[in-house]
Amino acid sequence: MTGIGRPDEDGLIARYFRPLATAPGAAQLLDDAATYQPPEGHELVLTTDAVVAGVHFFPEDPPDAVARKALRVNLSDLAAKGARPVGYLLTIALTEDWSPDWLESFVEGLGADQEEFDISLFGGDTVRTPGPLWISVTAFGLATEGHVPRRNRAVTGQRIYVTGTIGDSALGLKIRLDQTLKGRWGLSATDAEHLLDRYLLPEPRVQAASIVANFATASMDISDGLAGDLGRMCAASDVGAVLEADRVPLSPAAAKAVAADPSALATVLTGGDDYEVLATVNPDDTEAFERAAKRAGLQVAAIGTIMPSFAGRVRIERHGHPLVLDRLAFRHF
Amino acid sequence: MTGIGRPDEDGLIARYFRPLATAPGAAQLLDDAATYQPPEGHELVLTTDAVVAGVHFFPEDPPDAVARKALRVNLSDLAAKGARPVGYLLTIALTEDWSPDWLESFVEGLGADQEEFDISLFGGDTVRTPGPLWISVTAFGLATEGHVPRRNRAVTGQRIYVTGTIGDSALGLKIRLDQTLKGRWGLSATDAEHLLDRYLLPEPRVQAASIVANFATASMDISDGLAGDLGRMCAASDVGAVLEADRVPLSPAAAKAVAADPSALATVLTGGDDYEVLATVNPDDTEAFERAAKRAGLQVAAIGTIMPSFAGRVRIERHGHPLVLDRLAFRHF
Repeated sequence: MTGIGRPDEDGLIARYFRPLATAPGAAQLLDDAATYQPPEGHELVLTTDAVVAGVHFFPEDPPDAVARKALRVNLSDLAAKGARPVGYLLTIALTEDWSPDWLESFVEGLGADQEEFDISLFGGDTVRTPGPLWISVTAFGLATEGHVPRRNRAVTGQRIYVTGTIGDSALGLKIRLDQTLKGRWGLSATDAEHLLDRYLLPEPRVQAASIVANFATASMDISDGLAGDLGRMCAASDVGAVLEADRVPLSPAAAKAVAADPSALATVLTGGDDYEVLATVNPDDTEAFERAAKRAGLQVAAIGTIMPSFAGRVRIERHGHPLVLDRLAFRHF
Repeated sequence: MTGIGRPDEDGLIARYFRPLATAPGAAQLLDDAATYQPPEGHELVLTTDAVVAGVHFFPEDPPDAVARKALRVNLSDLAAKGARPVGYLLTIALTEDWSPDWLESFVEGLGADQEEFDISLFGGDTVRTPGPLWISVTAFGLATEGHVPRRNRAVTGQRIYVTGTIGDSALGLKIRLDQTLKGRWGLSATDAEHLLDRYLLPEPRVQAASIVANFATASMDISDGLAGDLGRMCAASDVGAVLEADRVPLSPAAAKAVAADPSALATVLTGGDDYEVLATVNPDDTEAFERAAKRAGLQVAAIGTIMPSFAGRVRIERHGHPLVLDRLAFRHF
C-alpha cells in the first residue's frame, strides 16, 4: 500500500477496497503489509497472474466480470495444486478517466467472488497508468503438507483426466470476434451465450483441489490450450501422451460447433482460457478418483494415457487415427 | 505462470527468470504455483507494490535500477513491519519493442538484490502490454509471531524516530527535472549524484526489521513524505505529533540545498520515496533502541513526540516556531 500518493489513494482504498479486507491480518488495508499464519501441517501455495485490457479481456467487458476473471485465473492455479484459496493481494492500474461506476462494479465482482470462494483481500496497490488498465493478482492458499501435485510427476501408464468441458472459452472468443460463426456453427442463442460466458468468466475448479491432492500425481491448470499444456506436463515429466480427441468432453454448444466445422476442433484442443484441471491418475486409483469427483459434483473425463517419452511428446488421435494440428498452444503473449 | 502464451513465454522465463528461482518451493518456475512453509513461531508478512514507467520511474532509467527499485519498495514495507524478507513474485508487462539487453540488465539487478538480501524469486507472470512497461511485485517475509509493529499503536509521550536521512530522493527527483537547481543549491557533483542515486535506488532498511520489532510499538515505511506519513500514523493511532524539523536528519547534500533554498525544506518533509522507517518508541526504551540500532549500523534520529490528538494531527516546529507547509503528502497517484 505504498509508493503512491495518498489523499486520493487513501480515499479510494477506504471507499472501494476496505470492505473487501475481511481477514484480521489484512489490518483493514490501513497498514504497509498483511500478516498470515498457515495452520500447522499445511503448506502455503502462492501464484500470481495479471490481466491487461485489450490483451486478456476486452476494455468494454463488464467490470465485475473483469475483476472476477483477474481473481479466478489465480484460483484456478491454486486448485490445480491441491490448494484451498485463502486470500489475495490485488494491484490495479487505473487510467486518468476511471469512473467511480466502473470501480464500484469491479469491486462488487470481487466481493461476490470472495463470498463464493470464502477468501479475503489481504492488501494491494492502486497506481495510475497512461496505458491500458491492468490488474495484477497474487493469490495464496493452503495445501496439506506434502500433497501438492506438481507438473512433473506424470508416469507412463497413467490415465489423463480433465475437469469440466474443454474449448468453450476459445470458441466463445472466436464468436465474439466473428459474429457470423454463430450461424455457421448452427448455435442457438443459448449455445452462443454459454460459450461467450465461459470466455468472460472462468470457473476455477476449486472443488477439485482436495481430489487432485489425494489422487493425482501430476496436475496443472489448462490456461494455454489442452494440447500445449499437456505437452508441457509431458516435457516436465519426461514422458509422452496419447490424447484421444473423441473423449475430450465438450459442452452441447462446443459439440455443435465441432460437428458443423471440423476446424473448430483445433480451437477446442489448442485454444486458451479453459481454466480446467489436467491431472494424471494411476490406473489403480481411477475408480476411487472418479467416485470422489462425483461426490464433489465435479465432472471429470479420462482423455488419454501417459506413454514413454517420444518426439513431439503428444500424439492426438481421433477415431483411432492421428490428428495433426498446426500449432499446439494458444499465444496470449 | 499462466494466462499467457507459451512458446515465447516459456523461453523468456527459462532464459531470464529461472536462474533467479533459487528456493526449492519455486519449482524452477516450471509449475503453476510455488510453495512455502513458514517455520514455527513465525508470521508471514505480505505486501505488494507496483511501478509504472513514466509514473514511478523514468523510462530511460537503467533497467537494473528499475528492477531493484520495484523490489526494494516492497522490502521496505517488510522491514517496517519487523519482517525479514524471504521471497517475491514478480509480474512484468513488456511492450512490443522490448529488447533482450534491457531484460538481461533488469534480471541482473534482481539477481544482485537477491544476493544482497538473501531472497528468492518464487513465481511470476510475463504479459504483453500496448502501454508503458510496468512491474508488479508481491514480497513476503517472516516476523516473530506477535511482533509485527502496526501503524496504529503510537501512544502519547512516545518519541518518534526515523532511520537514515530524509528528503534525499525527493530532492534528487527535483534536480533531475530541473538541472539548474544543482547550481542554485550550491551542490558539488558528488552531492548531486548522492541525491540522484537515492531517487534511483531506495535503500530498504532491512537491518531495522528486528530492532523495530523489539522496540517500536508503531512503525511504517516513509514512502509518501515524512509529514504526510506521520499524519497517517497519527490518524490510525488517534494521536497527534510534534515534528521538530531541526532534528530531521539530512545528508550533507540535502543540508546544503535547505541552507541555500528554504523551500527545499518543504520538499524534504513532504517529498516521497524516502523508504526510511518511521517508528515510535516508549521513552523508557529509547536508550536501548538507540544502542541496538548502533550495533546494527543503523542510523536513527529522534525527530519529535507523540501528543494527544489535535486537529491537523501533525504540528511541525522549526526553531521553536510552527512551520506551515502547503501540502503534507506527495502524490504519485
